[in-house]
Amino acid sequence: MKFAYSLLLPLAGVSASVINYKRDGDSKAITNTTFSLNRPSVHFTPSHGWMNDPNGLWYDAKEEDWHLYYQYNPAATIWGTPLYWGHAVSKDLTSWTDYGASLGPGSDDAGAFSGSMVIDYNNTSGFFNSSVDPRQRAVAVWTLSKGPSQAQHISYSLDGGYTFEHYTDNAVLDINSSNFRDPKVFWHEGENGEDGRWIMAVAESQVFSVLFYSSPNLKNWTLESNFTHHGWTGTQYECPGLVKVPYDSVVDSSNSSDSKPDSAWVLFVSINPGGPLGGSVTQYFVGDFNGTHFTPIDGQTRFLDMGKDYYALQTFFNTPNEKDVYGIAWASNWQYAQQAPTDPWRSSMSLVRQFTLKDFSTNPNSADVVLNSQPVLNYDALRKNGTTYSITNYTVTSENGKKIKLDNPSGSLEFHLEYVFNGSPDIKSNVFADLSLYFKGNNDDNEYLRLGYETNGGAFFLDRGHTKIPFVKENLFFTHQLAVTNPVSNYTTNVFDVYGVIDKNIIELYFDNGNVVSTNTFFFSTNNVIGEIDIKSPYDKAYTINSFNVTQFNV
Amino acid sequence: MKFAYSLLLPLAGVSASVINYKRDGDSKAITNTTFSLNRPSVHFTPSHGWMNDPNGLWYDAKEEDWHLYYQYNPAATIWGTPLYWGHAVSKDLTSWTDYGASLGPGSDDAGAFSGSMVIDYNNTSGFFNSSVDPRQRAVAVWTLSKGPSQAQHISYSLDGGYTFEHYTDNAVLDINSSNFRDPKVFWHEGENGEDGRWIMAVAESQVFSVLFYSSPNLKNWTLESNFTHHGWTGTQYECPGLVKVPYDSVVDSSNSSDSKPDSAWVLFVSINPGGPLGGSVTQYFVGDFNGTHFTPIDGQTRFLDMGKDYYALQTFFNTPNEKDVYGIAWASNWQYAQQAPTDPWRSSMSLVRQFTLKDFSTNPNSADVVLNSQPVLNYDALRKNGTTYSITNYTVTSENGKKIKLDNPSGSLEFHLEYVFNGSPDIKSNVFADLSLYFKGNNDDNEYLRLGYETNGGAFFLDRGHTKIPFVKENLFFTHQLAVTNPVSNYTTNVFDVYGVIDKNIIELYFDNGNVVSTNTFFFSTNNVIGEIDIKSPYDKAYTINSFNVTQFNV
Repeated sequence: MKFAYSLLLPLAGVSASVINYKRDGDSKAITNTTFSLNRPSVHFTPSHGWMNDPNGLWYDAKEEDWHLYYQYNPAATIWGTPLYWGHAVSKDLTSWTDYGASLGPGSDDAGAFSGSMVIDYNNTSGFFNSSVDPRQRAVAVWTLSKGPSQAQHISYSLDGGYTFEHYTDNAVLDINSSNFRDPKVFWHEGENGEDGRWIMAVAESQVFSVLFYSSPNLKNWTLESNFTHHGWTGTQYECPGLVKVPYDSVVDSSNSSDSKPDSAWVLFVSINPGGPLGGSVTQYFVGDFNGTHFTPIDGQTRFLDMGKDYYALQTFFNTPNEKDVYGIAWASNWQYAQQAPTDPWRSSMSLVRQFTLKDFSTNPNSADVVLNSQPVLNYDALRKNGTTYSITNYTVTSENGKKIKLDNPSGSLEFHLEYVFNGSPDIKSNVFADLSLYFKGNNDDNEYLRLGYETNGGAFFLDRGHTKIPFVKENLFFTHQLAVTNPVSNYTTNVFDVYGVIDKNIIELYFDNGNVVSTNTFFFSTNNVIGEIDIKSPYDKAYTINSFNVTQFNV
Repeated sequence: MKFAYSLLLPLAGVSASVINYKRDGDSKAITNTTFSLNRPSVHFTPSHGWMNDPNGLWYDAKEEDWHLYYQYNPAATIWGTPLYWGHAVSKDLTSWTDYGASLGPGSDDAGAFSGSMVIDYNNTSGFFNSSVDPRQRAVAVWTLSKGPSQAQHISYSLDGGYTFEHYTDNAVLDINSSNFRDPKVFWHEGENGEDGRWIMAVAESQVFSVLFYSSPNLKNWTLESNFTHHGWTGTQYECPGLVKVPYDSVVDSSNSSDSKPDSAWVLFVSINPGGPLGGSVTQYFVGDFNGTHFTPIDGQTRFLDMGKDYYALQTFFNTPNEKDVYGIAWASNWQYAQQAPTDPWRSSMSLVRQFTLKDFSTNPNSADVVLNSQPVLNYDALRKNGTTYSITNYTVTSENGKKIKLDNPSGSLEFHLEYVFNGSPDIKSNVFADLSLYFKGNNDDNEYLRLGYETNGGAFFLDRGHTKIPFVKENLFFTHQLAVTNPVSNYTTNVFDVYGVIDKNIIELYFDNGNVVSTNTFFFSTNNVIGEIDIKSPYDKAYTINSFNVTQFNV
């Protein structure tokens, strides 16, 4: 059934509500407060059961609702069939109402695998009549995986995305493959007077192909091109997605005559297994799409997030400002996702991120383009009444360090660190000269995250191995030490910059204002959440903190 | 001065001698036995001082000597100027005679940076007269790095590679760049009646370019093409190298009519910093070279070795069988190389490896090509009198496991494991169901390496974190847990295969007969070397060991 909000407020103005895990018509309905093991507050988690890829992301401009579907097994906290699309709705991309199982596979031995949602404004499919607002004509394009077959199906909703009817003539696209999945569809306006049409990016996974199909009506699909054997291939391609992304460049006035395009096409492709760090990874390509073919601007391989827990990124069909690109990834890794120590749910989504293309330099001589990531949260509400801790212009010595004790820690906070590496004659190349932040548990400070930068290694590191949770010690794929090569944010002033959101058992790190990102889960004991932050460096005056601000979220 | 061997034997027939760290004319001459902290036996290490990239690799067909040069700071165990090419010579690619500092930069504030050696058989350079055997007309092409300038220089040897004269009109190639280095030169035969000429691949590092130049005489160079922004870029490109590599394919008889080429060109490019695992990584591209341009066969990014310690791969100019491609990499990582706990030397080279192109499938439906790596060692000698331990057809249960005690462990051994994953109804997706090999120290079994495969993660893992060496705990970039996604070697029989060489403080792993490789250093306490191997699995009968053979090397 459809859930109606009594207040329809614009995004920026809504207040964050406590996450409400309401499941309409579901006898297992359960509320957030029932759970104990450090369930994230501002990252979506299902009320119970197993979750993986985000699916069918779209924005309902009539109701001003954001819709998130997700790969869902409500019957267990591990993957299994029947696999559904779960469904959640948000007003502010910060708090979500979970509706549990939605679109289903139709039989117990099958899965409604990943796919996307389109808004069929013009009723090209013929599924709608005038009783359905054009802004709510939601059609899901998804993969039915059953036995050895994977084929693309469509289903439509007459109630704005809450319930679905399966198209009677499914499958709409079947190439007799056992590895053909994860369709992501968008509307491509015709150029030069041609009609617009639907374009689908879909993975033929084990031959490392993203196939592009076109359709006038979502029912009949024509193969247009095959983007194959690009980037990192690992064991298979999954979850492709093509979207036009605006440039958000600081235009150098000396180059103002450059005819720099205002946008480029970005093709996302996820890899699992076989990411370089082990398991799952999301990559992207920057290029052009001419209506039939995607052509990358270069031969580079780029990863969207350098952490171990950021997979299957999907972007929203439609946003309030049409040009904005928002996306969500699954914040886990298939190498250990089904063993992560949470109950009665497993896995969370990443924060929603806004993507733009930015000029980027990994060294003083390069000019490159990168997909910049910015977290989208209802900051007005989250920062309301939140305690803020600040350090400014503080040069760390080996003696002093700094200690911040958080009052009434909730486990959900943001921090922003900006510092300068001063160098020091004491720092030879054979020492480990770090600036480290120890994020310690409030009830047991033997459990801590250590985030730092080290100048000889020229990189950030994150150590998530200091915990009593057996899973962390026992699962050898849950890499403790992670490195993130992060450029100095300003080569002239030698300033480094990192923004982070910590939310119970997940840390999202945005280096250099979001040009490099690393997302990783971590697990402390029940009710042990970040309660203290210690800052240390072993070398006198090697680092000066320009500013360090911590705000506990109002959750 | 030139070192003369009394016996000139073909490669296969020579006996392995104990490594002799002899430095002619060097007052710091020192022998291997002086050192304590687990110096490798069959991996080259300098007698003392700092070593990084391999340089100038070539084979002297007259003397039947293999020459290895290396980036060398004899004055300290950290990088510094004046930086030399060190020099070592081997008959069998297993034991080396170290001659210490060789080619130098000419001033204390400069470095003779990486480069390559060619044999100028036809005296195109004019440096030689008939007194020098054509097979020994060695010319080094290298980068002089001095102040803000990096430019290409040449030097020639009249005594078969032991001493060098700098060309008087150096630099031979200077583009007024501070990041222009690591020339690798080969002779390209002319096609269609054209003259042959020298081709140089050289990195313009911080703009992510491999520049190709041609020359008739090693002195005058003409820019031919620019291979730029390909693959993984990280912070900069280093150490490019282009070589023709033979296919070693198992020809499917059903495809015998395929006109498969017998070789392809492979372009190596190293990245540092900024490898996905942090720090240093070596990648390669497979393609074609038409005399001026390199064109890859696809848009894939491939890494040569999935470990953390395999950088700056260079191939030999010339091998006894001309088509064979042999190479050496530096077995360390810039993130921590200068802090590694060895003394009075730092860093070792990898084993010499032979490369061929092979058909390769990371899943049952793919057909791909990969650079296969095989270790080159004087196995006849190393296995002579070496004790061998064998296990065959052994199904591991949760109760029994297997323990192998090595007699008189030397710390240098090889092993070959072949096993089947049987599956088990007990193994749900929420358990860590591994087959683990614990390689334990002979004097202290609290120090151990753990190598294993886990079926739910679908990958191998290596844990090098169990040691008392402070460096391992303190340097956060010395990643303890490393994952290697390795395909089942045979999808029909479900057989997995891994061959390994452990040599005091380095483990080289060759999965699937060398199609996937991972090289990593590890550090135990002094004189604590691998003395016991325990095999365990927590689930009854999940794994059957078809064969496990361990041979201690005769070193």
